[in-house]
Amino acid sequence: MPKIAASVLGMKGSVYSHLAKRLHEQGGPVYPLHIGDTWMEPAEGCRMQDLEVSDHPGMHRYAGVQGVPELIEAVGARVSARTGVATGFDDVLIAAGATGGLCGLVGAIVEPGDEVVILAPFWPLIAGMVRAFGGVAVPVPFIGVADSPETAVEVVRAALTDRTVALYWNTPNNPTGRRIPAPWLAALAELARERDLWVVSDEVYEEYVYAGEHVYSRAFAPERVVSCHSFSKSYGMAGNRAGYLVGPADILGHAKKITTHTFYSTPTASQLAALAALGPAGDAWVAQARAKYAELGRWAAERLGVEAPEGSTFLFLDVSDHLDETGLVGLLERAVERGLLVAPGDSFGPYPNHVRLCFTSAAPERVRAGVEVLASLLGR
Amino acid sequence: MPKIAASVLGMKGSVYSHLAKRLHEQGGPVYPLHIGDTWMEPAEGCRMQDLEVSDHPGMHRYAGVQGVPELIEAVGARVSARTGVATGFDDVLIAAGATGGLCGLVGAIVEPGDEVVILAPFWPLIAGMVRAFGGVAVPVPFIGVADSPETAVEVVRAALTDRTVALYWNTPNNPTGRRIPAPWLAALAELARERDLWVVSDEVYEEYVYAGEHVYSRAFAPERVVSCHSFSKSYGMAGNRAGYLVGPADILGHAKKITTHTFYSTPTASQLAALAALGPAGDAWVAQARAKYAELGRWAAERLGVEAPEGSTFLFLDVSDHLDETGLVGLLERAVERGLLVAPGDSFGPYPNHVRLCFTSAAPERVRAGVEVLASLLGR
Repeated sequence: MPKIAASVLGMKGSVYSHLAKRLHEQGGPVYPLHIGDTWMEPAEGCRMQDLEVSDHPGMHRYAGVQGVPELIEAVGARVSARTGVATGFDDVLIAAGATGGLCGLVGAIVEPGDEVVILAPFWPLIAGMVRAFGGVAVPVPFIGVADSPETAVEVVRAALTDRTVALYWNTPNNPTGRRIPAPWLAALAELARERDLWVVSDEVYEEYVYAGEHVYSRAFAPERVVSCHSFSKSYGMAGNRAGYLVGPADILGHAKKITTHTFYSTPTASQLAALAALGPAGDAWVAQARAKYAELGRWAAERLGVEAPEGSTFLFLDVSDHLDETGLVGLLERAVERGLLVAPGDSFGPYPNHVRLCFTSAAPERVRAGVEVLASLLGR
Repeated sequence: MPKIAASVLGMKGSVYSHLAKRLHEQGGPVYPLHIGDTWMEPAEGCRMQDLEVSDHPGMHRYAGVQGVPELIEAVGARVSARTGVATGFDDVLIAAGATGGLCGLVGAIVEPGDEVVILAPFWPLIAGMVRAFGGVAVPVPFIGVADSPETAVEVVRAALTDRTVALYWNTPNNPTGRRIPAPWLAALAELARERDLWVVSDEVYEEYVYAGEHVYSRAFAPERVVSCHSFSKSYGMAGNRAGYLVGPADILGHAKKITTHTFYSTPTASQLAALAALGPAGDAWVAQARAKYAELGRWAAERLGVEAPEGSTFLFLDVSDHLDETGLVGLLERAVERGLLVAPGDSFGPYPNHVRLCFTSAAPERVRAGVEVLASLLGR
């Protein structure tokens, strides 16, 4: 075979392929709690079947690369109202999911050798994106380490170098279910200002907060914070691939050049579905989903003997006490033999003895049964 | 503002934004013939409104990153039958359009400083993709220059260096409407084998050939050719963002790591629509579209005094004789004042005095009126 790029050789492929094969072989009921998704169908009126060509002629044609104008406007109005940061047309970039938007943003700010300090545990794909553009992902254990605005700044500052170009954080946090408190965000934004860094604030679980209210990072430094948001997570339409970035128009214009080259435009029908979801049907869907998620999350946490999630759809468990000489791989395999898939901790940073469980990726009764499998494996 | 990546600063943004503003201001009828798209709605049965949650439970959830298994299998079977190259499950990667697939492939083979020799004129985004990953795009005027298998090899060989990792070609060609003959493809594939290069063969207009039959490149060197294909172009669903790569499983596995980080998974509903289009409804749609496109292309070429297209949906015109001191920009502006948008030649390689026109991006009567505007500007 001809040459393969070293950067991609260094990237891990899926950790699930051999597990999925075993899962298939074991033949019993399956509990796929490894992926962040929802068991619920989107709201009525916001499904593909609701989008008729007669109402939306040309709806299978390309959309503009920034997005469908009506959706850009609706997002701008909503973000302005929710965050208090005036958000104009060009401060919004619609993308193929938050993933598509973040990749565009990383491509616009990272050159080979540049470092991005990533508050850990983190959403796994951010590290690979940085590497795909030749950058260096610098994970900094943060959640569970910092305990005040001062220590938050201290642990992050210790990781900064002359090559640092950005900070990444994610709140409500995937995988831990914790939130970063407002005073910490304010202090970290101030540090970013002092060192002239970009801030990439991943807020895709903004709608799924079970204790207190979501705090939007952008207000703390609107000139340098780019936040990413997801119709996938908010409205149960992950398969549609639609999300968005909000931030300074200039950097979003550069991010748009990358998104144009990575997926061209965001799926048109998915944008129309997202626009529908920004109305009352979507709000009602979120309200009932939030209540169900909160209840499931609380129950799962209690059953597994960990703290209830403050937000997101995940629990992150230290399983050190239950590993034998086969390590985490052995535990994952024992889980799979009983039908349960969970995500290994090292996908989220230096957490070789943790697993992540999504408590919304299957119907509640299946999640409960999967949690029982894990509880039994952990002797809880 | 904090630092922006030099690679993205060097990439051009849209060339249309200021023209679009003028177009809006002129107030008369509009002929948007600058983008490659179709005026037709997709086949009945292959539209979003035809995809019901009751038939496809979970259809708004993530698909696997390689694609929906049934679609992968249908593509593999079709490609095996059409190309004669046995194409197994892992020789197929479904992506967010051919764009998404090509970006994944480029990310898997290009390291900073690597060169990709691009047969020109070329599809514009390929050059930007190479640059986005730190590579060097090396355009080589080819269509209209080579006139035999020997000269084809000669012009390409002259552009190769020790840093060359791949050749890119696109046939039927966007923007010229020409096809690369089979003996030339065979000779170029042999050159790639001799120099151990990847071949990226962009065949998204495979269904739109008006003279002779499409020649699939992969059979000439299946161990190194990766071809890309598009449901967008074949079935009039560009807004759905679904296409695919076929090639050696190993390199597609690496490309999949990049696509996972750029858009995660291909839109699920778009994959279901593509699967429907691979049946009889799609075949019938292609047959009628091909007849209409052929007629429009022939008419437009004749009206503009150029050769009829052999394939694709474009004409590429040398307008040197009609440029004044304002150059091509002046001509584009004069066109826009009369409602016509066409694409500037330098998007496709070193063609500063050409324009590209898509003869399928608006309804036939509108295309004809737009062609009349261009003919009048060119005194034809």
